[in-house]
Amino acid sequence: MTAHITKSWIQVPSNSDFPIQNIPFGIGQTADIPPFVCTRIGNSVVDLHALSELGFLEGLGIDADVFAQSTLNALIACGKKAHQQLRMRLIELLAEDSAIAEHESSIMLPISHVQMLMPIQIGNYTDFYSSLEHAMNVGKMLRPDNPLMPNWKHLPVGYHGRASSIVVSGQNFHRPKGQFKPDDAAMPLFGASKQMDFELEMGFVIGKETALGESVSVERAEEYIFGFLVFNDWSARDLQKWEYVPLGPFLGKNFASTVSPWVVTMEALEPFRTNAPMQDVQVLPYLERTNQKTFDIQLEVFIKPENGAENKVCTSNYKYLYWTFHQQLAHHTINGCNLKVGDLYASGTISGPTPNAFGSMLELAWRGTKPLTLADGTQRSFLQDNDTVIMRAFAEKDGLRIGFGEASAKVLPTL
Amino acid sequence: MTAHITKSWIQVPSNSDFPIQNIPFGIGQTADIPPFVCTRIGNSVVDLHALSELGFLEGLGIDADVFAQSTLNALIACGKKAHQQLRMRLIELLAEDSAIAEHESSIMLPISHVQMLMPIQIGNYTDFYSSLEHAMNVGKMLRPDNPLMPNWKHLPVGYHGRASSIVVSGQNFHRPKGQFKPDDAAMPLFGASKQMDFELEMGFVIGKETALGESVSVERAEEYIFGFLVFNDWSARDLQKWEYVPLGPFLGKNFASTVSPWVVTMEALEPFRTNAPMQDVQVLPYLERTNQKTFDIQLEVFIKPENGAENKVCTSNYKYLYWTFHQQLAHHTINGCNLKVGDLYASGTISGPTPNAFGSMLELAWRGTKPLTLADGTQRSFLQDNDTVIMRAFAEKDGLRIGFGEASAKVLPTL
Repeated sequence: MTAHITKSWIQVPSNSDFPIQNIPFGIGQTADIPPFVCTRIGNSVVDLHALSELGFLEGLGIDADVFAQSTLNALIACGKKAHQQLRMRLIELLAEDSAIAEHESSIMLPISHVQMLMPIQIGNYTDFYSSLEHAMNVGKMLRPDNPLMPNWKHLPVGYHGRASSIVVSGQNFHRPKGQFKPDDAAMPLFGASKQMDFELEMGFVIGKETALGESVSVERAEEYIFGFLVFNDWSARDLQKWEYVPLGPFLGKNFASTVSPWVVTMEALEPFRTNAPMQDVQVLPYLERTNQKTFDIQLEVFIKPENGAENKVCTSNYKYLYWTFHQQLAHHTINGCNLKVGDLYASGTISGPTPNAFGSMLELAWRGTKPLTLADGTQRSFLQDNDTVIMRAFAEKDGLRIGFGEASAKVLPTL
Repeated sequence: MTAHITKSWIQVPSNSDFPIQNIPFGIGQTADIPPFVCTRIGNSVVDLHALSELGFLEGLGIDADVFAQSTLNALIACGKKAHQQLRMRLIELLAEDSAIAEHESSIMLPISHVQMLMPIQIGNYTDFYSSLEHAMNVGKMLRPDNPLMPNWKHLPVGYHGRASSIVVSGQNFHRPKGQFKPDDAAMPLFGASKQMDFELEMGFVIGKETALGESVSVERAEEYIFGFLVFNDWSARDLQKWEYVPLGPFLGKNFASTVSPWVVTMEALEPFRTNAPMQDVQVLPYLERTNQKTFDIQLEVFIKPENGAENKVCTSNYKYLYWTFHQQLAHHTINGCNLKVGDLYASGTISGPTPNAFGSMLELAWRGTKPLTLADGTQRSFLQDNDTVIMRAFAEKDGLRIGFGEASAKVLPTL
């Protein structure tokens, strides 16, 4: 019904991440307006609370107060049918010749005037490890003769991460301190991490809860997903190396993770379906894919030194992941682990087949042996203080571009 | 001021976990009364919402609606001064000759009439690994020549766990299914776990949040803790063994964990301070203990087969932990990881020095080589379907007993 709508009464710059076909969701606030649910078109933020107050969002099965919350959780909990109807309504309202154009001043804000907040209250956060190239790269550094663990192709390896320290793009953080032990030291040392790294990831947000004991099949996984966002799983490699045996990453990760402010829905990503990589080891039946496709989403990472230019250091793609999000969710719930609305499931570092597609400094500079040279002539094996890391993601096909904006933050010096 | 009060107008059975000196906090409900904050004395539950409606909880800096919540989080967020004043007020109200005795019928319920609910909305859950005996036992099974990892005595090893599947005592769950790989199998198999285990733990609940980037010192750790509860970290050993390399436990743990319904406050535990074990490796300054004491809390585990008697299989003590809760919290935050009210930090399996003090079936039956024989003549290397595991905890000294009640749940057959 609205699939043909491609133009809005709002000016959308060519090459914008946010045409009328996107309709991502986020939480904004201004000096005058407390947190509100919003979407974005071009460089304009649409205040859904204001739209709702004007009566334009009635009949969708969504209570008006849902649009005045400080997270998207209440909206997400309304269910997929409600989101889809809301999306259609917004596309209609933003289409050419819409009756709401006269209300522009009360419902629209320039993006530059809006502070975007953490969009989700994340109850549970899991990080997978689903890129074969990343697992092989890291494995080769640690175990040259035997890079891949025996379980890796049988199940999407994952672990629980820290929800409290996941923050929205633009919130800078201090370089963590902690214990690390150089190979030639007898005892661990204490200090600021010397090996600050990023990890290029994407995450999906759960839209429908399950009861304890219930499992979600590969076939039905998409019913449980609200949308996707860009995720930087900041990592302090030296802390991680010393602490992670035998129970996994802890302080090397939980000091901060950064998400993009916009959650892009499954519906917006639909035109960008593509096949996931073939799996060359037969998986158990509960993990078998039938027709499930992944998404072709281009990913970029930039390092921007203080007062310097952006340097693109990585070009990767979500489609490279060996394990699809359907398989991740089916595996996570096969034992009856319950899902909650607002849970975040991150992909793990998304590395591609070529060296410029590696999704972390550890891999790009190959454990410090091949430092990157930036435009200003400085070199990086890991991140320096006041480096900003910017991750961008967008899907593009037949002239349509659906983007995520960016997940960006600066590594401040240790406190 | 109230320290001398030792008797209540409520009858308290001798040997009760809940004398007037305890005043634990929980959430109850009945068929007629929606969730309410409560405490317990003897076998009576005191409805704090009803007490508040009668005007007995005024002047404490706690809004009345805090007592009508379905979790303790809002109460906890009121801060330590408010909790301490509430505790004092309740002790006065429950003391002999109190004016509230005439209101008994509107504020008291027999425990048998109250359903106890999950007391906390847990935002973040971390599990430590702080028992030297447990780490040594598990290490000996896996690496007889080198049981302890090199980092173990330098930092309290921990990992992030799953919050969504933590349930309250009395909520049974189904044996999880998943992948496991016998040593002699070429490929992993799928089915119900054959190695269902419990882990005897205690956990503490965070009472005060920190900002991202902030650290909590060993000296100040107690300011951030609201109270303690009993915790069963159910574990499927066969799933865990296959999946846990290299990122730690995942589906082998996240199908269910059980907490006791009552949170016992730091104030109630104060008389039971004792020294923690000496640490024979010098730790880094941020982990050094000065005068910090732990608690002498006796722990017991019982297995009750369907229609059978309770069999005590383990007698341990919280004081055996090598790493104290002060050190756990200082370590967790040294990198700036932020704390939230309602976070749960579990101790890891608490094993003691003697074989009857081992806190898991893995250790008690020594990996299946020394099965336990129950009173009904049946044997256990791991848990069978319909076995109920009951954990109890209490501190006792000079005639005073402060208990936690129990954390109990039955392993139902796989769905």
